[in-house]
Amino acid sequence: MTKVLSLQPIGIIHTPFVKQEGTPIQPALAEGAEGWIELHEQYLPALKDLDGFERIWLLYWFDRVGEVKLEVVPYLDTVMRGLFATRAPARPNPIGISSVRLLGIEKNILRVADVDILDGTPLLDIKPYCPKFDAYEVQRVGWLEGTGQKRPLADDRFV
Amino acid sequence: MTKVLSLQPIGIIHTPFVKQEGTPIQPALAEGAEGWIELHEQYLPALKDLDGFERIWLLYWFDRVGEVKLEVVPYLDTVMRGLFATRAPARPNPIGISSVRLLGIEKNILRVADVDILDGTPLLDIKPYCPKFDAYEVQRVGWLEGTGQKRPLADDRFV
Repeated sequence: MTKVLSLQPIGIIHTPFVKQEGTPIQPALAEGAEGWIELHEQYLPALKDLDGFERIWLLYWFDRVGEVKLEVVPYLDTVMRGLFATRAPARPNPIGISSVRLLGIEKNILRVADVDILDGTPLLDIKPYCPKFDAYEVQRVGWLEGTGQKRPLADDRFV
Repeated sequence: MTKVLSLQPIGIIHTPFVKQEGTPIQPALAEGAEGWIELHEQYLPALKDLDGFERIWLLYWFDRVGEVKLEVVPYLDTVMRGLFATRAPARPNPIGISSVRLLGIEKNILRVADVDILDGTPLLDIKPYCPKFDAYEVQRVGWLEGTGQKRPLADDRFV
């Protein structure tokens, strides 16, 4: 299939992290780091009712990632893994998903916590986080088994 | 910002659901419905290690949705809600996320269960599901509070 699908950023994500080196690798490992979202004003009506949710999914574009890699050494491991078995950013379609805490909304500005995202990242979508849809108990987490205590930060391997 | 970001499907999702009407609205409400993914063969190396995971995230393109709506009546409700407070498909960037069960992988074919996706949907990304990153307890789920027993199927409201 060669059809090209196109996206338009709906806003910008602002965070304390200006380069990949030192950025948290997941919201759960972000130690509460705070940021804010500047939603383009034309989308204001779509924010209605969002303030009732404690967490929200952000979908965003990894805009500072280097070449696509089909195998990578993840931050949480020391050996090569298939890209789709990792959350590494060097993806064919460089879309990240992060479940962050929603602290508050004022007009088109959303304050969030637990951000693992680079400052200036283009925002693609916001969805409500709902445990009924998103939280599953699973028995098997592949190579991530046993990485529970590791809390690495990102480095420059995907720049 | 007017920069256009472009995506390339990495495969096709095959499911029993050929139209929105009657399609499950979330994996958790899909009653185990089975489907299969045909990954484009150039991405085969990226599947390594994925078979260790019980669930995987699929990111995909809502390719049969009508116009963008900034407020919608969700399937689980009867009143208008802000689009970003819902998982409805009529989004500025029509990207869906579904956590499905991975039943098996043979070459470039992945068998999955709990699919809530239309047959023929373009696949954009696969990520491993990991409770440490994806499962959060939350106190507040906004308007979704109290919808626990509802199990509607989709209809034609977003065609």
